[in-house]
Amino acid sequence: MGLYVQKYGGTSVGSLERIQSIAHKITQYRQQGHDIVVVVSAMSGETNRLMQMATTIQKYPDPREMDVLVATGEQVTIALLSMALKEQGCEARSYTGSQVKILTNSVHTKARIKHIDVNLIQTDLSAGRVVIVAGFQGVDETGNITTLGRGGSDTTGVALAAALKADECQIYTDVNGVYTTDPRVVESARLLQTITFEEMLEMASLGSKVLQIRAVEFAGKYKVPLRVSHSFEEGLGTLITIENQEIMEQPVISSIAFNRDEAKLTIIGVPDIPGIASKILSPISDANIEVDMILQNISAEGMTDFTFTVHRNDFEHAKNILQQIARQLNATDIQGSKNIAKVSIIGVGMRSHAGIASTMFTALADESINIQMISTSEIKVSVVIAEKYLELAVRTLHSVFNLDQCQSVE
Amino acid sequence: MGLYVQKYGGTSVGSLERIQSIAHKITQYRQQGHDIVVVVSAMSGETNRLMQMATTIQKYPDPREMDVLVATGEQVTIALLSMALKEQGCEARSYTGSQVKILTNSVHTKARIKHIDVNLIQTDLSAGRVVIVAGFQGVDETGNITTLGRGGSDTTGVALAAALKADECQIYTDVNGVYTTDPRVVESARLLQTITFEEMLEMASLGSKVLQIRAVEFAGKYKVPLRVSHSFEEGLGTLITIENQEIMEQPVISSIAFNRDEAKLTIIGVPDIPGIASKILSPISDANIEVDMILQNISAEGMTDFTFTVHRNDFEHAKNILQQIARQLNATDIQGSKNIAKVSIIGVGMRSHAGIASTMFTALADESINIQMISTSEIKVSVVIAEKYLELAVRTLHSVFNLDQCQSVE
Repeated sequence: MGLYVQKYGGTSVGSLERIQSIAHKITQYRQQGHDIVVVVSAMSGETNRLMQMATTIQKYPDPREMDVLVATGEQVTIALLSMALKEQGCEARSYTGSQVKILTNSVHTKARIKHIDVNLIQTDLSAGRVVIVAGFQGVDETGNITTLGRGGSDTTGVALAAALKADECQIYTDVNGVYTTDPRVVESARLLQTITFEEMLEMASLGSKVLQIRAVEFAGKYKVPLRVSHSFEEGLGTLITIENQEIMEQPVISSIAFNRDEAKLTIIGVPDIPGIASKILSPISDANIEVDMILQNISAEGMTDFTFTVHRNDFEHAKNILQQIARQLNATDIQGSKNIAKVSIIGVGMRSHAGIASTMFTALADESINIQMISTSEIKVSVVIAEKYLELAVRTLHSVFNLDQCQSVE
Repeated sequence: MGLYVQKYGGTSVGSLERIQSIAHKITQYRQQGHDIVVVVSAMSGETNRLMQMATTIQKYPDPREMDVLVATGEQVTIALLSMALKEQGCEARSYTGSQVKILTNSVHTKARIKHIDVNLIQTDLSAGRVVIVAGFQGVDETGNITTLGRGGSDTTGVALAAALKADECQIYTDVNGVYTTDPRVVESARLLQTITFEEMLEMASLGSKVLQIRAVEFAGKYKVPLRVSHSFEEGLGTLITIENQEIMEQPVISSIAFNRDEAKLTIIGVPDIPGIASKILSPISDANIEVDMILQNISAEGMTDFTFTVHRNDFEHAKNILQQIARQLNATDIQGSKNIAKVSIIGVGMRSHAGIASTMFTALADESINIQMISTSEIKVSVVIAEKYLELAVRTLHSVFNLDQCQSVE
């Protein structure tokens, strides 16, 4: 008999019928004798509906009042789910973030959890009740309602699991778990039974939107086993765990991630002097534009080129800023492209295997795919290529690194 | 410069445009230098929408969870109104019932206020902020969200005014104030500048639905001056005050109230013995049917008749119960009618004036209106008549007691 924190997202509770289905599922878990704490999001569409009302009234809504407003979304869900459980004969009790209480700092709309009081929850669990907690929200020291930002319900789930020392934090969503790559691109993509936190973090930061990155970080930090499963389909999903030292034969690469959301900018012919990177990148980050990959070419005759990628939505804005910088630095030219994609191979096995990067580069060269940029971390190699080669590149790498379903050894 | 508690009902905040209008109005009050505490209801329709979701999921929704659910209605309004005020440059801060905190007992869906903590509010007022409080809701000693029942926002307003020792509690609604009678029935009905709490209570209990009766009782008990005005039209409305001993020439009758919601039931030929009234009425009240007027005829040959009125919706139910009682008591017959109406004259002046009732009866007799039942209190005389005479009776009494506009002495 275990203690499980189960998190259901907005789509999983998106209608009264779905709330009833979820209640049925939870009731079955309870009947197996498990203790269950449920974290729910607002019904899908509700948070947007509330935000739209706010921006109609105030162009830049007051953050404190925004939190008061959107926190009602989850409050509706916890009450309805609790009713649905009771209707099925399963004792339950709901709590808002303030009631639990999930203590956060006071940074409205993106607060961070400081502490969770588990006394109330443990009393309810002992009394045989399912405890339902509003995700995404908390309360600061002076009693103001706070929210954790979009996707914060995952974080609430993990934080509760850590505070309660739960056996697992189970994230129920609209995918079956984590795949070796996107099944829409590679038909033979395989569902992973396990993946490490580090690999998951690299995948999440590369745009595989299964889990919120903050929640994965949090789970890794507090060693909370995290499981991603489908809300309405059968299956155990994917368990995200700390690295298992006992398994000798780890697959070298666990997954292929990719991202079409980036754009590339190059400033050509700037003096290769100390501080030049900062001169170029500071104005970009001052404009709140996030820079991902950065590449500086070798110097020729005291001059260098400088390339970086930004989110595709920020391309025009970044280009305008770069034009001003180019004038100040007497740069030769600036170039940019939105037709790029980033493809990454991820795997903790990389640590103990040499030559992984060159296998990747060779495989891409064999398909005549030109690599425009390269970036590496301890467990990841990313390349930027022309967007038109994306699917080909992913399929090629998926096959080269033996991730295809037929070759599964798990 | 005064301290005013202003309560705006669901219709007054029923759309984003209306919330902006209310914010404009409040900003003007602030600019005059007044301290303002605002109590708001849920946007009209919202509470019903939430209740409908609940009853879809659970036929008899759990009361604790129902309160968690419907409390979101006012929480949305306080946030939006606070944003609207800020957008107009008026500093504001919103509070839920839990945050303020409005401490209630634990009777979910119809809790009663025990205490209000005014520290937070007073700090905000001192800092020049408008304070916005969610009406209708509170929190019990263990932190559960409670609600005060339908119309409870009026009660929140009065309770806050009492706790803050406000100069006035102003209830903004969709009428201009309290009239001598319903202007739709008597064209010359006059808006009253003032009315006493006792008169207002009699009017409220007789079905003039301007104010919730609990709020009026509460205001009377704590001597909170209560003003009813229109949310969007000009005018001072009606001030409800304690009786003013200094005004020598009070009008004898202040208003004519009426009610079409009742039905009459008579049980004929029951033994006139001690305890007979209880034998007849206990089963009715056990069925949660409220009895209004009760009339027992004089005894003839040890037998008596017994007549009472109930809400028209309860007529069939009460009749069925009465039929069983009739069999047990060997009563001769039972009779009933839904075609009745109750008309009442109300006025504190009655205390010091004799003959008011007979003036009323004579006036009705002059119009050939038969009186079926009579009931009196210290400041009220009610009669039951055939429903078809209702308008004639109201117009006649309005004129006889000099309430017509042209004869106003105020």
